Amino acid sequence: MRTSRPTVVKPPSPGPAEPIPLDSEFYQRRFFIEDLRPSIDGGRFAVKRIVNEPVEVTADIFRDSHDVTVAVLCWRRENETDWQISPMVHFDNDRWRGEFTPHEVGRYEYAIEAWTSGFMTWRHGTLLKLQAGVNIAVELLEGKALIAEALQRAGDGAPRLEGALKAFEATGEAEALLADDLVAPMRAAEPRPDLTMSKVYPLRAERLRARVGAWYELFPRSQTNDVNRHGTFDDVIMRVPAIAALGYDVLYFPPIHPIGRVNRKGKNNSLSPQPGEPGSPYAIGGSEGGHDAIHPELGTLDDFRRLVDVTKHHGMEIALDFATQCSPDHPWLTEHRDWYKWRPDGSMRFAENPPKKYEDIVNPDFYCADRANLWRAFRDVILFWGEQDVRIIRVDNPHTKPFLFWEWMIHEVQTRFPDMIFLSEAFTRPKVMKALAKLGFTQSYTYFTWRTSKAEFEAYLSELTRYPECEYYRPNFFVNTPDILPFHLQSGETWIFKSRVALAATLAASYGVYSGFELIEHVPLASGREEYLDSEKYEIKPRDWNAPGNINDYIGRLNAFRHANPALQQNANLRFCLVDNDAVLGFVKESFAHDNAVAVAIALGRGPYEFWFHFGDLQIGPEGARRQVRAIENLVTGERKHLEWDGIRLWIDPSSEPALLFRCIT
Amino acid sequence: MRTSRPTVVKPPSPGPAEPIPLDSEFYQRRFFIEDLRPSIDGGRFAVKRIVNEPVEVTADIFRDSHDVTVAVLCWRRENETDWQISPMVHFDNDRWRGEFTPHEVGRYEYAIEAWTSGFMTWRHGTLLKLQAGVNIAVELLEGKALIAEALQRAGDGAPRLEGALKAFEATGEAEALLADDLVAPMRAAEPRPDLTMSKVYPLRAERLRARVGAWYELFPRSQTNDVNRHGTFDDVIMRVPAIAALGYDVLYFPPIHPIGRVNRKGKNNSLSPQPGEPGSPYAIGGSEGGHDAIHPELGTLDDFRRLVDVTKHHGMEIALDFATQCSPDHPWLTEHRDWYKWRPDGSMRFAENPPKKYEDIVNPDFYCADRANLWRAFRDVILFWGEQDVRIIRVDNPHTKPFLFWEWMIHEVQTRFPDMIFLSEAFTRPKVMKALAKLGFTQSYTYFTWRTSKAEFEAYLSELTRYPECEYYRPNFFVNTPDILPFHLQSGETWIFKSRVALAATLAASYGVYSGFELIEHVPLASGREEYLDSEKYEIKPRDWNAPGNINDYIGRLNAFRHANPALQQNANLRFCLVDNDAVLGFVKESFAHDNAVAVAIALGRGPYEFWFHFGDLQIGPEGARRQVRAIENLVTGERKHLEWDGIRLWIDPSSEPALLFRCIT
Repeated sequence: MRTSRPTVVKPPSPGPAEPIPLDSEFYQRRFFIEDLRPSIDGGRFAVKRIVNEPVEVTADIFRDSHDVTVAVLCWRRENETDWQISPMVHFDNDRWRGEFTPHEVGRYEYAIEAWTSGFMTWRHGTLLKLQAGVNIAVELLEGKALIAEALQRAGDGAPRLEGALKAFEATGEAEALLADDLVAPMRAAEPRPDLTMSKVYPLRAERLRARVGAWYELFPRSQTNDVNRHGTFDDVIMRVPAIAALGYDVLYFPPIHPIGRVNRKGKNNSLSPQPGEPGSPYAIGGSEGGHDAIHPELGTLDDFRRLVDVTKHHGMEIALDFATQCSPDHPWLTEHRDWYKWRPDGSMRFAENPPKKYEDIVNPDFYCADRANLWRAFRDVILFWGEQDVRIIRVDNPHTKPFLFWEWMIHEVQTRFPDMIFLSEAFTRPKVMKALAKLGFTQSYTYFTWRTSKAEFEAYLSELTRYPECEYYRPNFFVNTPDILPFHLQSGETWIFKSRVALAATLAASYGVYSGFELIEHVPLASGREEYLDSEKYEIKPRDWNAPGNINDYIGRLNAFRHANPALQQNANLRFCLVDNDAVLGFVKESFAHDNAVAVAIALGRGPYEFWFHFGDLQIGPEGARRQVRAIENLVTGERKHLEWDGIRLWIDPSSEPALLFRCIT
Repeated sequence: MRTSRPTVVKPPSPGPAEPIPLDSEFYQRRFFIEDLRPSIDGGRFAVKRIVNEPVEVTADIFRDSHDVTVAVLCWRRENETDWQISPMVHFDNDRWRGEFTPHEVGRYEYAIEAWTSGFMTWRHGTLLKLQAGVNIAVELLEGKALIAEALQRAGDGAPRLEGALKAFEATGEAEALLADDLVAPMRAAEPRPDLTMSKVYPLRAERLRARVGAWYELFPRSQTNDVNRHGTFDDVIMRVPAIAALGYDVLYFPPIHPIGRVNRKGKNNSLSPQPGEPGSPYAIGGSEGGHDAIHPELGTLDDFRRLVDVTKHHGMEIALDFATQCSPDHPWLTEHRDWYKWRPDGSMRFAENPPKKYEDIVNPDFYCADRANLWRAFRDVILFWGEQDVRIIRVDNPHTKPFLFWEWMIHEVQTRFPDMIFLSEAFTRPKVMKALAKLGFTQSYTYFTWRTSKAEFEAYLSELTRYPECEYYRPNFFVNTPDILPFHLQSGETWIFKSRVALAATLAASYGVYSGFELIEHVPLASGREEYLDSEKYEIKPRDWNAPGNINDYIGRLNAFRHANPALQQNANLRFCLVDNDAVLGFVKESFAHDNAVAVAIALGRGPYEFWFHFGDLQIGPEGARRQVRAIENLVTGERKHLEWDGIRLWIDPSSEPALLFRCIT
């Protein structure tokens, strides 16, 4: 097809590339530095790491010919001008490796430099000739010249080089120029005319909570024993000790802002609510304020700050919800009419998913003419909560707002609060979910909630833990959410609730439970629907947290295992094991430092099952000291079992305990 | 390790990245365009293609939300300013595809543009609402406004848009604004505020010979029947018809330039030659001239030009050798002393591989102070031969010269002679060989010469034919070279010579034979050495080209099959088949246009063998019309056999015919 472009659009392309002129410095850079890992999309996005964990960097580094190459890893905090330098070593087929460790939360950069060592090349050849009995008189003159040249730029190494030249002059001995201890000062001082630096790659180092955490989600207004009494922050404060005792790390609230009154939704998403119904907290904003205000029935900002402090005191932290939609009575609708789209008849353009309309919310227009101020206003909302000591933000439906808004906003917020964590609640197409993670979201919701078979888990976890996904996509496995009561929970059988929470808590470093799950709540809105009946989104829902049949103790034990075993605090070192039963998932996770390994078997069906858990040739331990697993020790009972034929026979009865967790012993 | 940099080296890094200001156009570009294929190292290097073969381009294209995306493929010759546009279609999971066909030899560029169609988004939603019985009165006002806005920029489509507005005004009917035939003019005319263009990627389109050719290598001076009479270009001219009759496409000569006399090598690489020995043609340059001169004993430049013409007349073309080393008496050693390195005692720095020295050659210093003129001089050598109508250059040992020299030189030469082909003779580490191919070498020598087992062939060919190697690495499989008499040929058994040439001729689109191979020459320099005894590199070697036992007819038949079957003229569509014998390699190749498929079985051992050749679920044919292979027809005998259970029982007796070739029939 040969068509011409519409004339209105000017091609934004750079136009034909000019050949690089021969006298350009470009031609001095003799090295190829290829396939540098870790990197995301050629350095467009930052690799994610946790502080104090070493970052191993590998790359293909080579030039023409056979001269001796030196390569180093350069790294620095984003705002530093000097690079720090780590050595790199060649380990295989032109592949080199080096490492550095970021010790502070924040943005880093790294790159590789390579150059030819003229001295080492000379030394290598001269030693070979010496061994072969060749006359090296002229070679020694060459070596002397190399040292003399380096001497002119040598700093600390100058005395050693001077000494070598003097010794050679005095004795004429080859050893004077070939001595081992000349290598280091010559490497530092000799010229590097072909020094080649790779592209510079970004990295973000974050606190451990960015990767690891057990989340508990609750609606503050439901923390009451009376459906007619709106729960408050003080009610939540009273619950904090019990939640913390179960080992949860993060306490997450749906929006806590004033709720709109115009077109307010009633119970079960009804369009005709009764007077006094509380509405959905996702219809943000009312006469009392917008995204930076607190719903008056929950309490005051001071109450909230007290809650933040109490939570912190109990070793947890608060996560707030960030949803950009506004209720029709959000103050911005009047203060910033131009931040919204209006219809030709002057009416509001409600959120919609044609043919459906959501008449209790309006989306701001992220590409309105006053875009910059709208974006800044949203940033300022997060900064405001940051100033209230909130350091975790769960973002509602980020995939329906511009990608570049998130990249900009997260960058801005983390410049002010480097330890701010953002969780992306995008349930959408895989590439979109990955794009959000690349753009800066610290962690992400996943498809876990709907994965049920062994083959599905193996495929999905393999995708999340492979390169490059493992460098940017940090999963948070929610067993349920206020929006999702998955089909497999609707039977209400306790074993499946236990199995699901065990899967989430052991497969992913971060996982989440929405309250009610521990009480085996399981009644759907209707048959064939994955939504809760009488959803808490639209009503106040008092509960008896100690009701018979609850699985709080079970969850508490899982959280304790997670805290005690670093192997469960990361996602990357996961290996599936052969289990001769498709209804049992078996895997081993090993800590980043290789000082802890846990074997897990979880029933995916009602069972009971007897099965072989086969370790095959799986080895654990640090590189250079990897070993076969020889025994496993039950984390609950302490019972130790020895492997036979690289495997072990196990028994699971999901009605009491659908998951077996073991420490691996070599 | 925390060390400071040596102070002499200034970090060439760009320094900390500034955040992009909010009012930048950057934020307007709402689309992600990821994993664009084909591309090599993010567009750093050109993808290679043959003219008139379609280029399919795929990419992940997506933005936030669910608005309707339009994407097009933009492409142009490198020196054009206007882009040509091909449509792209979504086919799977945010992945899109489009194609274009380069029709001329030369450099191209391509890119992807994506934007949101506001009109299509509106139309999609409005149609859904219409179906759902929702009142769309306000939606119609919106649609009318969209059309009115587009009308202001509409070219050819203006009358249709105007008609729609008038019809709607007259009737108020939704159909006036929702008609199918409004889509095309609206797509062309509506504004594209979020138009996003991908990076621009380079591509080189070349003539078929860049990929396909049977090469025959000979030493012109050996084209004589008397060891004391130096063969000439006229002798070569006399052999051309016979060589062409065997179906060879390229006639390749080692260097044809004057040979140095200083330190000239004698028979079998002797350092003490007898007077009158001809020396190695790789010791280039003498009193008669350098790289742009002809060795006087071969003839004159006019003789050479006649040879070029005769070769062309017989449907072949000449390939010359390009080696950058110089004999000590090369004119440049005196004219451009500063192009070489000299030793502290004033002596020449001969080529060396410590502890070995090669005292008949000197390498120019590609990074001497006068580098630019040295590089230009080498470029001009190739341009000179280009002016003599030479269009194929085989480059000797390119891996020991700077990568960027090759990139620059090949670019320069192909600017003047777009159809110039460069073959890289690098036998070195895999990443270096691949780097040379990326830098611009049209085709490359390979490890084929040493690959012998079925597992080796399957692994190596899978590597060469996979993405991205298939986009830049065009193999040329040489069965032997003047430097390499591989061990497996040293038995001198005819079946292995036939097997090797059949493997080369069918596995790779380009392959080569160095003369003597067809005469089963097989005596090594010494046991355990892969070099020829009495190597032609150091002496004149007359031969009887029709000596009994030669396999010329066999090679001629293979070349005829290659010419008749497009399946054998490409490398990408190769699939290995299951053969229940490790000594038989089985595979199917299919033409780029899917109009020809060939099945091949080749014995890797003495045999004879009876075996199952299993096609499994292999299908051939164009997309959308792929079919199982049902029968195969022997290319020699025409005999047709039908598959049973997706396979066929075959018999090979390598003593007569180690390779079976079939046409596949569906």
